[in-house]
Amino acid sequence: MLRTVLAAIVSTAPMLAIADPLPSWNDTQTRGRIIAFVDSVTDPEGADYVTPAARVAVFDNDGTLWAEQPVYFQLIFAMDRLAEMAKADPSILSTPILEAAAQGDFHTVAEGGHEALIEVINASHSGIGVDAFQATVSDWLDTARHPDTGLPYDQMTYQPMVELLRYLRDEGFRTYIVSGGGLHFMRVFAEQAYGIPPEQVLGTYADTNYDNVDGTPTIVKAPGIAFVDDKDGKPINIERTLGRRPILAAGNSDGDFAMLEWTTTGDGPRMGVLIHHTDADREWAYDREGPVGKLVDGLDKGPEMGWVIVDMAKDWDRIYTGEN
Amino acid sequence: MLRTVLAAIVSTAPMLAIADPLPSWNDTQTRGRIIAFVDSVTDPEGADYVTPAARVAVFDNDGTLWAEQPVYFQLIFAMDRLAEMAKADPSILSTPILEAAAQGDFHTVAEGGHEALIEVINASHSGIGVDAFQATVSDWLDTARHPDTGLPYDQMTYQPMVELLRYLRDEGFRTYIVSGGGLHFMRVFAEQAYGIPPEQVLGTYADTNYDNVDGTPTIVKAPGIAFVDDKDGKPINIERTLGRRPILAAGNSDGDFAMLEWTTTGDGPRMGVLIHHTDADREWAYDREGPVGKLVDGLDKGPEMGWVIVDMAKDWDRIYTGEN
Repeated sequence: MLRTVLAAIVSTAPMLAIADPLPSWNDTQTRGRIIAFVDSVTDPEGADYVTPAARVAVFDNDGTLWAEQPVYFQLIFAMDRLAEMAKADPSILSTPILEAAAQGDFHTVAEGGHEALIEVINASHSGIGVDAFQATVSDWLDTARHPDTGLPYDQMTYQPMVELLRYLRDEGFRTYIVSGGGLHFMRVFAEQAYGIPPEQVLGTYADTNYDNVDGTPTIVKAPGIAFVDDKDGKPINIERTLGRRPILAAGNSDGDFAMLEWTTTGDGPRMGVLIHHTDADREWAYDREGPVGKLVDGLDKGPEMGWVIVDMAKDWDRIYTGEN
Repeated sequence: MLRTVLAAIVSTAPMLAIADPLPSWNDTQTRGRIIAFVDSVTDPEGADYVTPAARVAVFDNDGTLWAEQPVYFQLIFAMDRLAEMAKADPSILSTPILEAAAQGDFHTVAEGGHEALIEVINASHSGIGVDAFQATVSDWLDTARHPDTGLPYDQMTYQPMVELLRYLRDEGFRTYIVSGGGLHFMRVFAEQAYGIPPEQVLGTYADTNYDNVDGTPTIVKAPGIAFVDDKDGKPINIERTLGRRPILAAGNSDGDFAMLEWTTTGDGPRMGVLIHHTDADREWAYDREGPVGKLVDGLDKGPEMGWVIVDMAKDWDRIYTGEN
């Protein structure tokens, strides 16, 4: 017993001291600012010390923790699922939008705007128990491959961000996802991909009903969208669910602006992080234009707010977790 | 260091073995069933072992963790707050219902039904930032006293339940409140009274807005009720917030029926607990009748569902935390 205790003390202490917590981050000012912040809030002797209970860090998902091009991966799932459902019952493709979606034609769906999107989400995400729905997401993640990279979608997580999440947890933070993506969709992979358990995943949701399905009480997904976890919805959802104001928030688009603003305007030490997609060679380069991940306010006001702007091309040594 | 380790091992081990985790529970079958359940799900060698991540226990608040007579304590707070607000601006008592409420006449408010209740809640709970609102709740808890017991309201928590919450956490459970009471109201005292942090408090809520108040981004409480955390709303809210099905649920009224049903009809070991208010001498005796805490379905169907029915008069040696 004593031998084990001693061995554990001897073997872990030096490892903790020398291991690089962020091996996929280049040695830039960005990396230095992140580590300096974490050091400052975890130093019990320091002026900026924050108790573990208050060390809450929130992360957007699409474009922040995994890629979001050419469209949000959840939309690709929805279209794939429609195509799969239509094999058994072609009559479900009852409108031109649903027909286009089942063919993977996301341009037509995108042109249809919000209404078309709801149509696709309703047909692919509702009228099914949560457990059964999540089994279809799990199957899809096992088999689907991204059209450009050929990777499974849950291997297109950003390795530097996976390391940042783990580093923060090692330093006593609790890490949360707060995303415009669907709650039930994200919970299928968040624990394995990011180490984030279901109760720490906040997202957009439809209503659910408590129904008796074949004699079994079951939570069933209803059509429509009851809450959009984007823009002002992000701080509202965080406050409602956690009852705490985070001290660190990370995002990549103007949908994250309010979350970063609320986080960083609180008292005491705060950190806002924006991922800037600058790497057309290894990932995609986009910001002020386009249907996905538009970043205008963040670039214009973020620096004066003191936010860290991550330059993906310069700051990251590696992009995807699934790279060889 | 070694001396400290050894001392800790020697001093804690026997204490853990002999300390009674539920000193305010009488030595009845009820107590035995609760302890047997906890033993079974925490024994790594046993057939009913449950991993710590899945050890989720959910508790109603009013009538389960603290008293709820003569009316829900939050309604007393609302009426007291209206009276306080009217001192500064009597014109806020603009209807007969609000006038009655400010006089503490809860019979008139109750007779007005849902509409009257919303009127009182809107006037006392909205148009104010969450932080400012919670400061008023905190002040009220410091000064208000229950008309019958003379106790501060947050001393009218049930000591046996406070012990049960602590016992479960000591055994690796996470404990949650899932209550028809207001989210922001309960979070003010839940941590100190029950050891339950804000992110583990689920309740009824109004919409909130993300507003700029005097240059500061602020979450502000809006009028109305956006989600009622009662009946089917309880399992729906648990699934939405936690993404997990609890293995233990405790309540005291038919508003808790769906939560207990959903909890106890899952696979593996499960426990449902109903607090039956049988003690007219030390607390109140009520079940099938009355405006608060009506318990009909639970008494009729609970026993055949295998739920533990706590007989407050027989099973509890002590009632309130605040008793001498």
